[in-house]
Amino acid sequence: MNDSSIITFTSDFGTREYYVSAVKGAILSVHPESRIVDVTHNIASHDLLEAAFTISCTAPYYPTGSIHLVVVDPGVGSSRRVLIASTEKQLFVAPDNGVLSLVYDRLGVERIISVEADHYFRQPVSPTFHGRDIFGPVAGWLARGIQPNKFGPQISDFVRLTLPTVGKNEDRLEGFVLHIDKFGNIVTSLSPRNLQNEFSPEQKATAMIINGQTIQQKVEYYAQGNDESLFFLIGSAGYFEISALKQSAARRIEARRGMKVELIVS
Amino acid sequence: MNDSSIITFTSDFGTREYYVSAVKGAILSVHPESRIVDVTHNIASHDLLEAAFTISCTAPYYPTGSIHLVVVDPGVGSSRRVLIASTEKQLFVAPDNGVLSLVYDRLGVERIISVEADHYFRQPVSPTFHGRDIFGPVAGWLARGIQPNKFGPQISDFVRLTLPTVGKNEDRLEGFVLHIDKFGNIVTSLSPRNLQNEFSPEQKATAMIINGQTIQQKVEYYAQGNDESLFFLIGSAGYFEISALKQSAARRIEARRGMKVELIVS
Amino acid sequence: MNDSSIITFTSDFGTREYYVSAVKGAILSVHPESRIVDVTHNIASHDLLEAAFTISCTAPYYPTGSIHLVVVDPGVGSSRRVLIASTEKQLFVAPDNGVLSLVYDRLGVERIISVEADHYFRQPVSPTFHGRDIFGPVAGWLARGIQPNKFGPQISDFVRLTLPTVGKNEDRLEGFVLHIDKFGNIVTSLSPRNLQNEFSPEQKATAMIINGQTIQQKVEYYAQGNDESLFFLIGSAGYFEISALKQSAARRIEARRGMKVELIVS
Repeated sequence: MNDSSIITFTSDFGTREYYVSAVKGAILSVHPESRIVDVTHNIASHDLLEAAFTISCTAPYYPTGSIHLVVVDPGVGSSRRVLIASTEKQLFVAPDNGVLSLVYDRLGVERIISVEADHYFRQPVSPTFHGRDIFGPVAGWLARGIQPNKFGPQISDFVRLTLPTVGKNEDRLEGFVLHIDKFGNIVTSLSPRNLQNEFSPEQKATAMIINGQTIQQKVEYYAQGNDESLFFLIGSAGYFEISALKQSAARRIEARRGMKVELIVS
Repeated sequence: MNDSSIITFTSDFGTREYYVSAVKGAILSVHPESRIVDVTHNIASHDLLEAAFTISCTAPYYPTGSIHLVVVDPGVGSSRRVLIASTEKQLFVAPDNGVLSLVYDRLGVERIISVEADHYFRQPVSPTFHGRDIFGPVAGWLARGIQPNKFGPQISDFVRLTLPTVGKNEDRLEGFVLHIDKFGNIVTSLSPRNLQNEFSPEQKATAMIINGQTIQQKVEYYAQGNDESLFFLIGSAGYFEISALKQSAARRIEARRGMKVELIVS
Repeated sequence: MNDSSIITFTSDFGTREYYVSAVKGAILSVHPESRIVDVTHNIASHDLLEAAFTISCTAPYYPTGSIHLVVVDPGVGSSRRVLIASTEKQLFVAPDNGVLSLVYDRLGVERIISVEADHYFRQPVSPTFHGRDIFGPVAGWLARGIQPNKFGPQISDFVRLTLPTVGKNEDRLEGFVLHIDKFGNIVTSLSPRNLQNEFSPEQKATAMIINGQTIQQKVEYYAQGNDESLFFLIGSAGYFEISALKQSAARRIEARRGMKVELIVS
């Protein structure tokens, strides 16, 4: 690994409080050369799925050796574990509450360590702010080159979020709304890979159904969409998305996260 | 040029999504030493004028060699071009949709390149996320020292926004509201330079008119303003602004962007 | 001092405007190696107490030699002074309007300089944007290693905010709501140190009273709280806080900043 001074940081701390900055200070106090990159701190409070989606979509674009710090931690202070997860090229530091579920599913985790070596923590550890006193310093020590196995034992019983399954039903794939973005694009849990796994190569997606509406216009990119109609496309996160031209598809459809979606194949 | 590792980044991606971070990852994957500085990612979705105003106001304060990445790109995926614009001291990377209009008008662009060399892109290029796959990597390669002319041919038919003109009418200059800031300050399109060009040196601005209201108090800085009255001044962006003390002038006047404003001279 | 290239930045400029970026450009133009870390730019406009709280809570976690730039400056352009305050290990740059009050109270300031050496300013100085033209460049020159005493004379008559006092009344401590955070946690002005100073070691906090409600559940960390009841704890900022499990205590109690709070001791 190289470039190990890059630490991305995802949280639900918001951008108005002192929390994000205190974590950064704690990281920089361990490893002043750290180059901290904000992913977002506007994850909805305690929203593990939103954080899971976000980090799994952004980590693949970072260099080998990058460290991804994810602090959405409603169980702070309790006995939930602190994890270091290794993929082939990168490291993730997060609470063991499922927030890395989509990293496990999509990015191929090789090893997960339960962090127990408290001499790497900032002392005293506040029972309400492990981001500053545990997670941040652990990321800082990893950036300084301490190997994950120095922090504790390997585990295999880590927590995963329970998500609605993606399934086949005759001529269709069934999934759910995974995320609604700020443009109102509706990101579903259905991917071209699901299609490929369940249908033959000559079969194509021809429509999507959501909240009683059928969307038949399929495009390659947003600006191709018709001014009036909703359309669907393969979005940049690698999932089928439902969108509208320069307006919010989610508002038009009254879509909510978790809502059922179907992809019609023929 | 020097300090070419500084890349500023302006977009309408918001700060809640993974988009900004994915672009940063793509930049750092090309040039890990890049020092990325956020301008803002809270440009209103698809608002080219707001982005144009913002980047033209901030770029002049950066060191020689800085690279300014501007991704407000409603035409993503279509055939709109990707540009590298060079001023005497800095570079700009943006879609050819007018988002650099005020850079062209105010900062003296010397050369504009249409980016065609797709070996500098991240592959595969998603048709919905050129920020990550084209604009970011191009900025990264520029930061690594690749010269703009390696990316494609020089062009002269680039797109400009059509803006209301600034004009003289007897004893007044007519312009429009260019921007309303978070404090409620109303930034107009009228500048001291307009005044200088159209009137003699001894003539001074004595009042501003907007939405049926005449503002006669002129000050040097906000705290000089009277508690009760609206006032106008030359703001830090180099334009005449209408303000109120510790309250929103825009709300008091019900000002909106694009609204006509007049500057009375005598 | 070392690591003097770390400059934290706190302001009320918001994240949508060009202001934050222009200040960063001005810093980088003085000292391109500066490593600027955002604390927050979402301090409520002109809110000196919120900024004072924020910087005093975050600065202690930064390395020796860090420089903290705080620009909440309703008096910009007037004759209010520009300060450099030194603690044992760090420097603060801010207007002399009380925004460093909690730094003075909590972090042990050793010396305060009134900045007068205008050859360290960006010229011309806009009377409406000292952040860009004065505060930012001063921080940049400090990061380059210029000693504080080069900027002007030491002063002792600096401005402090007038805050409600923390006092003892028989079996209780009386204080006020200092801050309400994004999770709805109510941070009070009362600290374990106040308790220690006013009561004997065997006496403990047993309840808090706010807005007519008595909160008797005391916990160590949030997840310990009962689902239904409000509780109080010692928060990570070092103050007694009133909270609720995964919901906003502030909304339940209709708490506002400045509201009286009591800590019952027995």
